[in-house]
Amino acid sequence: MIQRKLEVTYRPFDRTTRVPPGTTVFSAAHWIGLPIDSTCGGRGTCGKCKVRVLEGGTEATTADHRQLRKDETDNGWRLSCQARIYEDLTCEVPQLLRVPKAATMGLSRLVIIDPNVRKVYLELAEPDLEDQRSDVTRLRDALTAEGHDMAAGVAVLRTLPMTLRDAGFKVTAVLAGEQLVAIEPGDTTEECFGVAFDVGTTTLVGTLMNLRTGMAAAVRSTLNGQAPFGADVISRISHAMNGPESVDELRNAVVATMNGILDELYAEANVKPERTYEAVVVGNVTMLHLLFGIDPTPISMMPFTPAFMDALSVPAREVGLRIHPGGYVQTLPALGAYVGADIVSGVLATGIAREDKMRVFVDVGTNGEIVIGSSQRTLATAAPAGPAFEGSQIKCGMRATDGAIEGVQLSDRVELQVIGGDVPAQGLCGSGLVDAVAQLLNVGLLDHSGRMLAATDAPNHPLADRLIEVEGVRAFLLADGVYLSQRDVRELQFAKGSIATGIKVLMDILGVQASDLDEIFLGGSFGSYLNPESAKIIGLVPPVDVDKIIAVGNSAGEGAKIALLSYRERQVAFELPTRIEYVELSGRSDFNDAFVSVLGFPHLELVS
Amino acid sequence: MIQRKLEVTYRPFDRTTRVPPGTTVFSAAHWIGLPIDSTCGGRGTCGKCKVRVLEGGTEATTADHRQLRKDETDNGWRLSCQARIYEDLTCEVPQLLRVPKAATMGLSRLVIIDPNVRKVYLELAEPDLEDQRSDVTRLRDALTAEGHDMAAGVAVLRTLPMTLRDAGFKVTAVLAGEQLVAIEPGDTTEECFGVAFDVGTTTLVGTLMNLRTGMAAAVRSTLNGQAPFGADVISRISHAMNGPESVDELRNAVVATMNGILDELYAEANVKPERTYEAVVVGNVTMLHLLFGIDPTPISMMPFTPAFMDALSVPAREVGLRIHPGGYVQTLPALGAYVGADIVSGVLATGIAREDKMRVFVDVGTNGEIVIGSSQRTLATAAPAGPAFEGSQIKCGMRATDGAIEGVQLSDRVELQVIGGDVPAQGLCGSGLVDAVAQLLNVGLLDHSGRMLAATDAPNHPLADRLIEVEGVRAFLLADGVYLSQRDVRELQFAKGSIATGIKVLMDILGVQASDLDEIFLGGSFGSYLNPESAKIIGLVPPVDVDKIIAVGNSAGEGAKIALLSYRERQVAFELPTRIEYVELSGRSDFNDAFVSVLGFPHLELVS
Repeated sequence: MIQRKLEVTYRPFDRTTRVPPGTTVFSAAHWIGLPIDSTCGGRGTCGKCKVRVLEGGTEATTADHRQLRKDETDNGWRLSCQARIYEDLTCEVPQLLRVPKAATMGLSRLVIIDPNVRKVYLELAEPDLEDQRSDVTRLRDALTAEGHDMAAGVAVLRTLPMTLRDAGFKVTAVLAGEQLVAIEPGDTTEECFGVAFDVGTTTLVGTLMNLRTGMAAAVRSTLNGQAPFGADVISRISHAMNGPESVDELRNAVVATMNGILDELYAEANVKPERTYEAVVVGNVTMLHLLFGIDPTPISMMPFTPAFMDALSVPAREVGLRIHPGGYVQTLPALGAYVGADIVSGVLATGIAREDKMRVFVDVGTNGEIVIGSSQRTLATAAPAGPAFEGSQIKCGMRATDGAIEGVQLSDRVELQVIGGDVPAQGLCGSGLVDAVAQLLNVGLLDHSGRMLAATDAPNHPLADRLIEVEGVRAFLLADGVYLSQRDVRELQFAKGSIATGIKVLMDILGVQASDLDEIFLGGSFGSYLNPESAKIIGLVPPVDVDKIIAVGNSAGEGAKIALLSYRERQVAFELPTRIEYVELSGRSDFNDAFVSVLGFPHLELVS
Repeated sequence: MIQRKLEVTYRPFDRTTRVPPGTTVFSAAHWIGLPIDSTCGGRGTCGKCKVRVLEGGTEATTADHRQLRKDETDNGWRLSCQARIYEDLTCEVPQLLRVPKAATMGLSRLVIIDPNVRKVYLELAEPDLEDQRSDVTRLRDALTAEGHDMAAGVAVLRTLPMTLRDAGFKVTAVLAGEQLVAIEPGDTTEECFGVAFDVGTTTLVGTLMNLRTGMAAAVRSTLNGQAPFGADVISRISHAMNGPESVDELRNAVVATMNGILDELYAEANVKPERTYEAVVVGNVTMLHLLFGIDPTPISMMPFTPAFMDALSVPAREVGLRIHPGGYVQTLPALGAYVGADIVSGVLATGIAREDKMRVFVDVGTNGEIVIGSSQRTLATAAPAGPAFEGSQIKCGMRATDGAIEGVQLSDRVELQVIGGDVPAQGLCGSGLVDAVAQLLNVGLLDHSGRMLAATDAPNHPLADRLIEVEGVRAFLLADGVYLSQRDVRELQFAKGSIATGIKVLMDILGVQASDLDEIFLGGSFGSYLNPESAKIIGLVPPVDVDKIIAVGNSAGEGAKIALLSYRERQVAFELPTRIEYVELSGRSDFNDAFVSVLGFPHLELVS
C-alpha cells in the first residue's frame, strides 16, 4: 500500500506535491487546488489541459497524438489529464481554468462547478444523400467536435430517431460521464439537476442540487424506512441473514425512503424527475450493500469482508430510484468494512489527505470512524464504541429528541440545556452524557480513574446534595428523575476509550504527538452536537487547543454534494482508498495495551 | 474516408501490410494472419504480445509501463496490442501464438479459438484479518494475476458473497470481454457456450457453439415470426410506422422466434441456458433495429438514415433473450442503411478487404448488396433489385419450396430440376428463373435485347412448339401450366440490371476490369442456389471464368460464428466500416447511364 511518492512541480506557480506513481499531472494539480484549464474535465477529449514538461518525462499517449501537433509533442507538450507520472517532474501550466463557476462547500472548500452530468445543446446538420451518417454517429460527431466522448445504450437509442426529427435536429444531449442519458428536444440546458443522498442507518438526508448554479434547490431528511428491522447496522444484517427475501425487504425499504424524499424534493423545488440525471449516494458499507440488494452478512462476521468497497455507477433503472430512467446512481468508495463511503465523503468535504495540515477526523457513533494524516500519509480505522454515545445502555439515556439533556454546565449550581426548550428534562442524550461527565471531572466530583465521589467524600461541595445512590450505585442527580450513574460513567469510559485508542494507534503509526495536530474534526450527526471542550476533557480526542477542535456537521452529505457538482472532486474521492491506509484494530496487541492506558480520564493542564 | 495508409513490416517473417493510421501493431498483424502470442486477446493485460520496434516509432503507453521493464521500453519493446501505428514501421515478433486451437470456418478460413467469453477457474485465498479485501477486489486481483481485466455490475455482485462462501472460494469466473457475467461454484470451465444468430427478414438461423471446442453443438432455423406483418423489410417498416406499440410487436415477434430457436438448441444439445453467455447477432439494419425496439422508419425514407450502424453490446436481460441473464447480445456493425451487419459478417467470413485478391461479393435478394475490393481498397453499395429474384412479380413465380423449378437445362429438350423431387412442377423460383432465361439465351430463343422469339420466328427449332402466347404476351412453356413470359424476362432484366450496374459503378471507381477479378462470391440464401454459369450468362455478374464464381452459402451465419469464437476476428469486423467505403447509388448520374447500358444481355465468348 505504501508506495514511493514522486514529486511534481508546477510552474509558474512553483507549487510542488508528492503523488503515487501513475497519478496524472492533471489530477495531481487538482489535489493541491490548481485547476488546470479543461472543458472535458480531464477525459482527454478537449485538448485544453496541455502542459509543457520541462524536467522528467512522460510519454506521449494516443490522445496526445490526436489532440496535439507533432511539433508540440516533440517539444514536451502533453495533455495533463493523460500524462501519468512515473518519475519526478516539473512542468509549465500555460492556463488555469478562467473565471470558473465555483461554490463554497464542505469545510470552506471552494469547489469548481464541473458536474459529471453535462448538457450540450446541438443544432445538428440534417441528413441528406451526401451525409447519411446514422443518428447516433451524427450525434457523436457533433459531441466530439465540442470535446465530449459519447456512448449510447439501447434505451436512449429508442428515443433517438423520433426526438431528432420532431425537434428538427435541434436537441440537447445529456451526458453522465460519457454515457448518453437522454436526448431532449430543443435547448433544455437550463434545467439540470442531481441529488445527493446521505443514507444513514438512522436518518436519510437528500439534497436536490441545481447542477448549473451549484445551489441546493431543496433539502429533506427522514428516518430510514429500514428502522422496523432494527436500530443499528448489526440488527439490519441479522435480518438480512434470513435470506434473499429479507435482503430485498431491506432494499425496498431504503429505496422507498429515498423515493419518498425525492417526491418531496421535486414538489418543493418544482423540478421534474426526468430533469434529475444523477444521484450521488454515500453511506456506510452495509447501507450501500442493502441499497443494491447485496447480502451484507460477511460484513458482520470475522474477518469482516464486504462484497464491494468500490465506487459503483449503477443505472437508476436498476436501483429503482425515481430520477431520469436513463440516469445513474453513483456511490463513493469505502476504506474498510466499517469505514464507509460516508467517511470518504467526509474526507472529501474536509480536505484531509490532500493538504499539508496534520488533522484528525472522527465520526462518533456506534463505531468511531477515524482518519488521521496529511498529504504526506493518511491512515484510517474504525473503533467499536458500543451504543453509549447514542444514549443506549445509559440508565437515563435517550435519543436526541425533545426532553433530552444535550448540554450540562456545572459550577455551584447545575445548568441544563434541554432539547425542545421549556419542556422538563426526561433523559440524557449522547452530547449531554459527555458534557455531564466532563463537568463532573471539572468540578472534582469524578476522579481521573472515573470513580464518582459519594456525598460523604465531599461534604462541603456546593453540589454535594446531588450525589445520590440509586439501587446501591452512586449517581449524580441532574434533574428530577434524571441522573448519571457510576455505571453510565464506566460505559462512557469504554466507548471513548475505544475511540481514543484508535486515534492513539494511528498517531503512533504516523509518529505524531498531540502537539503536531493542526485540527481535529468532529463529524457525523452526533459529532456535530458534541461540545469540543467536553470531548477533550473526557479524553475522547487528544489534548489540543479547544479552538482546534471543530464540529464539521454533516460532512458526509457535503461530500456527496461536492462529488455531484464536480467530476474532478469525485475523481479525488475515487482515489482516496489508494491514498489512505486502512488499519484493522481487531487482533492488534497495541490496541489492547493502549486501550487500558486511555480508559481513565486525562490530567489536562489549562482546563478552565 | 480515404486515409493515407502506413506500412508495417513484421520480422522475422518479412510480411508487410498497409493500414490506416492508429491501427495497433497487433491488429495489423492479425489482419494478415500473423497471430502474435497473447492470452488476453489484445486487451493489454497479459503482456505476452510484446514486439520490438526496429524502425519507426511508437510511444510507450501506460500498459507498457505496467507490463514491461524500463530497459525493455527503452530498447523499443512495446505491447503490440497497445502500440498504435502513426508512421511506417518495422518490428520483430518474438513469439507467435503456439499450437493455437483453431477451427476452419467461413470460406476455408482458419480461425483461432479465442472467444470474447472466457472462463477462469480460481482458487481464491480465503479472507482473514490480514487480508480483508472485499469479495470483488479479491476476485479482480486473482483475475488480474491471470491477465484478465474485470468489471462487475450489481446483478452479479448480488450472487458473489454467497457463491464464494458456499464454494469455499473455489469458483469459475465468466467474463465477456472484461464484464463479469457470472461467478459459478467450482470448476465449470468445460461448459461454455454461445449462440450465433443470422436474423433474416424471412428466415432465422441459430447455431449453438461450444466455445471451448469451437464446434457447433446444434443448429436450427425457422421462419421469422414477424412474417404476419409483411414479407419484406419495407412492409415491416410500414407496420412499425403505426407507433411504438407496433415497433414492440415486431420486436416481441423476433425475440420470441429467437427464444424458440434457443429452446430447441438447448434441448438438442442438452445445454443449460445459463451456460450460454453470449449471442452474436447479424442481420440487415432494419432487423437489428427491430430486435432492439428502435423505430426503423427513417431507413425507408430519403435520405435513408438508420438510428445506429455501430456494433452494439447489449445486456441479454435488456433484449429479453433466454441466455444467461448476465450475458450479452453482440451485433456486428453495418456499412450503410441497406448494407447491414449480415454483409459485414459475410465479408468477415470470406476474407474480402484483408487479402490481396480482388474480389466481388454479391448478396442477391430484394436488394443486391455488393462489396468489391482487396486489402488495398474496398467499396460497398446496395442496388435495389425488386422482388424478381424472390419469385415475386413473375407470372408463374413462387418461393423456393416443393414444386418450384429451381434448375432448367435446355437442349433439344427441356430438363427441369424441381424442389421436392418427384412432385409436378408448380412454378418457378428465383434460381429457376435465372436458369430459364440463361438457357433461352443459350439456345437462341431470346435475343440479347431480351426479346423472346415467337414460334414463327424459329419454326425449325426443336423447342419451337414451346413458344406460346399467353393473354397476348409471348411465353415459353416449361411444364404443364408453368411458363416464362416476355414480361418476366423484362422483370429479371431490371433486377439483374440494377445489381450489375452497382457492380459496374464500384468497379469503375476502383478502376478495375472483369479481367482483374480473382473471385466472385455469391452469398445469401438465394445466391447459394444460383447457377454460377447462368448468373454470368444473364450478365448479373461480370464475365469471368465460371470457376471463379463461387456460391459461399450462409456467409452471414458463418461470420457470426467466427465473431463468436474469436475476439480478434470480431475486432476485425468492428474495423470494417472504417476500411470499406460506402457508395450511395441513389442520385448518382453514372448509375442511370450504366443501368441503361447493362439492361440487355451480354455477348459472351466461350459460352458453352
